[in-house]
Amino acid sequence: MNQDYIKPDNWSILEEGFDVERVESSESLFSLGNGAMGQRANFEEQYSGATFQGSYIAGVYYPDKTKVGWWKNGYPEYFAKVLNAPNWIGINILINGEMLDLYRCKEVRNFRRELNMKEGWYERSFTAVLQNDLEVEVKITRFLSIHRNELGAINFEVEVLNSDATVVFEPYIDSGITNEDANWEEKFWQTLDVKTEEHRAYITSKTLKTEFHATAFMQSQLLKNGKVLSEEATEVIFEEKISFRYTVEAKKGEKVSLQKFGGYVTNMNHKKEDLVPAAKAVLESALKAGFVTLKKEQKEAWEKIWEMADITIEGDVKAQQGIRFNIFQLNQTYLGEDARLNIGPKGFTGEKYGGSTYWDTEAYCIPFYMATKDHHVARNLLTYRYNHLGKAIENAEKLGFSNGAALYPMVTMNGEESHNEWEITFEEIHRNGAMVIAIKRYVEYTGDYSYVPEKGLEVMIAIARFWQQRANYSSQKDKYVILGVTGPNEYENNVNNNWYTNYLAKWCLEYAISNIEKVKIDYPGDYDRVMDKTGLKVDEIAKWQEVADKMYFPYSEEYKVFLQQDNFLDKEIIPVSELPKAQRPINQKWSWDRILRSCYIKQADVLQGFYFFEDHFPKEELEKHYDFYEPLTVHESSLSPCVHSIQAAALGRMDQAYQFYLRTSRLDLDDYNHEVKEGCHITSMAGTWMSVVEGFGGMRVVEGKLSFNPKIPNGWNSFSFKVNFRNQILKVSVAPGKTGFVLEGNDFLEILVNEKSIVVEPNNLVSV
Amino acid sequence: MNQDYIKPDNWSILEEGFDVERVESSESLFSLGNGAMGQRANFEEQYSGATFQGSYIAGVYYPDKTKVGWWKNGYPEYFAKVLNAPNWIGINILINGEMLDLYRCKEVRNFRRELNMKEGWYERSFTAVLQNDLEVEVKITRFLSIHRNELGAINFEVEVLNSDATVVFEPYIDSGITNEDANWEEKFWQTLDVKTEEHRAYITSKTLKTEFHATAFMQSQLLKNGKVLSEEATEVIFEEKISFRYTVEAKKGEKVSLQKFGGYVTNMNHKKEDLVPAAKAVLESALKAGFVTLKKEQKEAWEKIWEMADITIEGDVKAQQGIRFNIFQLNQTYLGEDARLNIGPKGFTGEKYGGSTYWDTEAYCIPFYMATKDHHVARNLLTYRYNHLGKAIENAEKLGFSNGAALYPMVTMNGEESHNEWEITFEEIHRNGAMVIAIKRYVEYTGDYSYVPEKGLEVMIAIARFWQQRANYSSQKDKYVILGVTGPNEYENNVNNNWYTNYLAKWCLEYAISNIEKVKIDYPGDYDRVMDKTGLKVDEIAKWQEVADKMYFPYSEEYKVFLQQDNFLDKEIIPVSELPKAQRPINQKWSWDRILRSCYIKQADVLQGFYFFEDHFPKEELEKHYDFYEPLTVHESSLSPCVHSIQAAALGRMDQAYQFYLRTSRLDLDDYNHEVKEGCHITSMAGTWMSVVEGFGGMRVVEGKLSFNPKIPNGWNSFSFKVNFRNQILKVSVAPGKTGFVLEGNDFLEILVNEKSIVVEPNNLVSV
Repeated sequence: MNQDYIKPDNWSILEEGFDVERVESSESLFSLGNGAMGQRANFEEQYSGATFQGSYIAGVYYPDKTKVGWWKNGYPEYFAKVLNAPNWIGINILINGEMLDLYRCKEVRNFRRELNMKEGWYERSFTAVLQNDLEVEVKITRFLSIHRNELGAINFEVEVLNSDATVVFEPYIDSGITNEDANWEEKFWQTLDVKTEEHRAYITSKTLKTEFHATAFMQSQLLKNGKVLSEEATEVIFEEKISFRYTVEAKKGEKVSLQKFGGYVTNMNHKKEDLVPAAKAVLESALKAGFVTLKKEQKEAWEKIWEMADITIEGDVKAQQGIRFNIFQLNQTYLGEDARLNIGPKGFTGEKYGGSTYWDTEAYCIPFYMATKDHHVARNLLTYRYNHLGKAIENAEKLGFSNGAALYPMVTMNGEESHNEWEITFEEIHRNGAMVIAIKRYVEYTGDYSYVPEKGLEVMIAIARFWQQRANYSSQKDKYVILGVTGPNEYENNVNNNWYTNYLAKWCLEYAISNIEKVKIDYPGDYDRVMDKTGLKVDEIAKWQEVADKMYFPYSEEYKVFLQQDNFLDKEIIPVSELPKAQRPINQKWSWDRILRSCYIKQADVLQGFYFFEDHFPKEELEKHYDFYEPLTVHESSLSPCVHSIQAAALGRMDQAYQFYLRTSRLDLDDYNHEVKEGCHITSMAGTWMSVVEGFGGMRVVEGKLSFNPKIPNGWNSFSFKVNFRNQILKVSVAPGKTGFVLEGNDFLEILVNEKSIVVEPNNLVSV
Repeated sequence: MNQDYIKPDNWSILEEGFDVERVESSESLFSLGNGAMGQRANFEEQYSGATFQGSYIAGVYYPDKTKVGWWKNGYPEYFAKVLNAPNWIGINILINGEMLDLYRCKEVRNFRRELNMKEGWYERSFTAVLQNDLEVEVKITRFLSIHRNELGAINFEVEVLNSDATVVFEPYIDSGITNEDANWEEKFWQTLDVKTEEHRAYITSKTLKTEFHATAFMQSQLLKNGKVLSEEATEVIFEEKISFRYTVEAKKGEKVSLQKFGGYVTNMNHKKEDLVPAAKAVLESALKAGFVTLKKEQKEAWEKIWEMADITIEGDVKAQQGIRFNIFQLNQTYLGEDARLNIGPKGFTGEKYGGSTYWDTEAYCIPFYMATKDHHVARNLLTYRYNHLGKAIENAEKLGFSNGAALYPMVTMNGEESHNEWEITFEEIHRNGAMVIAIKRYVEYTGDYSYVPEKGLEVMIAIARFWQQRANYSSQKDKYVILGVTGPNEYENNVNNNWYTNYLAKWCLEYAISNIEKVKIDYPGDYDRVMDKTGLKVDEIAKWQEVADKMYFPYSEEYKVFLQQDNFLDKEIIPVSELPKAQRPINQKWSWDRILRSCYIKQADVLQGFYFFEDHFPKEELEKHYDFYEPLTVHESSLSPCVHSIQAAALGRMDQAYQFYLRTSRLDLDDYNHEVKEGCHITSMAGTWMSVVEGFGGMRVVEGKLSFNPKIPNGWNSFSFKVNFRNQILKVSVAPGKTGFVLEGNDFLEILVNEKSIVVEPNNLVSV
């Protein structure tokens, strides 16, 4: 953890001072994305120190051959990797023939980075003394256009402070790139065509095996003191790289700059043969608009996003910065318009974890996107899984299931499994339940039931079939048991009767049954289509009911709590507080077997169930389970603090809730786990949003109505957030002892505040 | 399974007919070894079809960098690999300029292989029609000298049947070899020096990292019609290869042959700087003796081995061939004179499984070596582990244990762990118990207690410390439990309270305590030394006793059996006999999670405990457990059938015992699992020996006396075996209804036959 790394600011992420040790971490934190593409904050100019180069195109992946020590039957032979794509940001700078390279400068002063979240741009500036003693002041601004999502823009400005000098800008595009995360050090891209046209260049390459075609492109112009020059450029073309060489004489104190426009067009959105013309069109339109106008567009696009998604916190600038960073990154990663895309665990900030989609999307991200965007965005996320249903059925077949049972993959990009640890891939099956939870929450929150008959019911049926087949009857218990699973707590593997999994399985079975009944009555056409497609039989449903009715749940009479798994109480139960600091985090200090047989919990497990099914249990039950499990929880997953923050808030333990909130919201900014250089924890950022809205705001949906139990952490003057509930926009402002509601639009809205019904009139502040 | 592959013969392994599909399998089956080195039966001449090249030097290994998909804390970074060593057997043959290559011949007739186990040589002969229509008859004899264990010899004889011809022999040595089993396709050997001297050549190379130095050497002579010619040879020297070129004119019908002597000397037995002189000495002495004498020596050496180790079976040639193949391979692999060596699971027949030592040695191989060799051989095997004690303590420390607790590695070559599946490496800890079982059996069988005070007690203490720390107190059970283990049945992972493991742990604790007491009284000097070295305290022993006294054993009141693990009965219990054939073997047909949650058992687990501790339970208990577990056992480990064969025999179920016997004894010869091409299952071969001696012969040690309960399978006329019991040699011959005992030496021996005491006088047949 490094609390002094990022300077506090309400709207910007700021770094001051140059430290080679922090370059890779900052490359993650200052990443840019626009939903369609993104990139780590790599330097444009040459840098010979340690760097992790990354530029990514959403949806473009490579099926890398699986690498394991010992093969287990059922592993996928190949799986989807997030791909580093051709570099279009590169600009070499030569000053009087010497290459600008911060790693080799005599001195670097005034180094500063700013990620302006309000307006969506990134700026880096510094003064450097080169080996040839020239002193230069440099400022680079960069953004990826939200509005034109195939375009990015860079303004690279140089001023030589102590001499006249010849400045050379060498903008380039380069497809000779590699992946850090490659199993066999193979090349993933093949360059097909390298093409130039005046100040423009294109490199078209394709991914091997998957045959995604992408054209990386650029066009540059030279400016002096803000005026465009008409200097000619020299072209240098290599097999996988094109650069232009712009030379300009700059008097001491004159500002010279290169504006570079670049990006990608791919065959996901264009015909293969139209890629170069499409790229040309993007560039022509960008040049026509110009850098200043594009930057203005960017500001406006982000204004629109913030208008709906912002959370304000007054009186705690670190908390404010944290929540905005989370909201900013989520929006950089996924904007919801394309049902082929999803929210990768590292977004566009790194490669780790292969595929792009985890159960994180359903369990953590859906509420954020439902509340801060139009509802079709969440529906697109559900549709993503519907479109993968066939692959999920194939996946289950590989593991011995039949009759249309589906097991969604642990990690995926295209519907196929992209992970290979048997205890996770084959056994962390609770993820299947999250698919159905997401549907339930979507219906409850948006009020849009149409998704169920149209698509969701098929998913529910396939998943119910899985649970019924996966449970087996134990004659000694006269119950159905689910053996050999890994729950959300990945610090126990291959356990029996994980309570969370069993509870979710039972609920999925019952929820499928009740929806079949509802669709049968309310949507008979869809009902017939789905029954026909799935071949579902009445006795199958009866079997589901039997399994649900007789599901086994481990329970401790001594502690009066549900047990995380059958044998949990055989473990030595010693609270985390008694663990020596030197032994933490246990995932770095202990061998795996020791972790497994310890009582320590990585992330909410039984409590995850209490989170999803809070309304199934009285609050005293939540309290008892929280008091039993939280003290045993090491929170070594980024997904852990948010759920605990929400529950601590519900139990009125605001200090703890606030500590958890800080941990989730500033996980990356303060680099809690010394790993931010690998990328940011994007999906858990949605958990941060939940901590505020569901935790401190106490927002729930109760019988179709929005309900609030507002609380505010000590030291905060106020906080506010906005939600889109069933197409009505409600702004909630919480101050100590006072909560205000402002409703947009024309219709009133009945809400519950601290269990009391309140009617909010449009455009009138209601204070409670 | 291929029952017609190997022709039945009492003393030889015979293959007839050339089949390119069988080349790699036969390379395994016809392997040669002399304890110090060994090699697959690769062709000497060029062969361009599929082949798995392998030549191995005992004790020479390379620490290959671990390859895994997902790293788990505690994995070793490197581990020992069995190494393919420089090739010294190669002889290219050119006839009228055409290369002899069985893969490219127009026709191959009369192809025959014989592994003569009685005399210890391998012969291959065939008639081939080359592309140039020359018809040649070829016969190659090869052996690795038992007597001179750095030497091998080849006689390669060629007769051109249909023409006069120029025959060129090109013997070579080649250090440019690779490993099939290499994690990162790195080179393991570096060639240091290539040297020739008249008809002799040497290549000295070293293994990277481990710096084993080995000199491969050769010397050849040309013969025509049995007479040595004095033809000059042309030398060809490459960077990593030397060949000589011998040219001879052969008239039609004349036999020309090359005799090649070769092998390895290494710095395990010589100084580095003396390797070439040592090789030269081996060659000079070999040339002086000549091929014929060397072959005679070989026959005599094997006569001596067979004299003690042979088992005869009359009336069942396949059973006879099977047992002799097993005994032959065991002796080829390990002869017991070098405590740095051990019995690799593939011996010198393949590379699979990395390191050379598993718990197989202690659990399966020790009885064979104790009974068929002088007792110092078994003592060497025990000493091997004693010498690794320091590494075993380090290994346990890595996993969080302290105070001198030891965990022996799952697989090793030099004492360090060489395996990386967490569920095995970290959790299959029962192996630790086998180390102590081996000591117990050694003491019981040989009567040599001196090993305990000198070495064994330290091992026992370190292992007792491990078990005490590894068990934890369960307050809900008021017992000590052992969580998160894998038992011998590797088809259950990370289970709790595996009965076998718990039973072994308890026994190890108690056995250590009782031996400490005995050594204290009988060997006070050793006692003081060991107490001083280990720092053992009285209260530590009291803690051991407490854990042993309160060890938990899962038990089913319903079935009246000990349960393999806590939750075994939650599984669906369906006997193997009801599994469709198409689903077997399950380790190929089912995904890993399905195997894990099934009730199917890979190899004896609870029954392994009943095997080791047969005398702790009345026979009815064995029967009950056998009847419960055997029907659930799929025997998909090569170590499974032998234990079941012994127990079936003990229960008088001779048909089943015989079926298991056949499966173990002809596992490789009949290629049950279609995998013999990877190498033979050497360690399970000792289990075959146990099936005859302990199974059919019913041999046990009961209160210091040898005891027999002889039984004979239907259809066998008789069988016989010899054992060295406490330095007395007893031959046992069993025929239906009659067992004969003949004792060598001068002293009488009291034995038990069917529980009755009998005194055997020396050199007098006693029939019962």
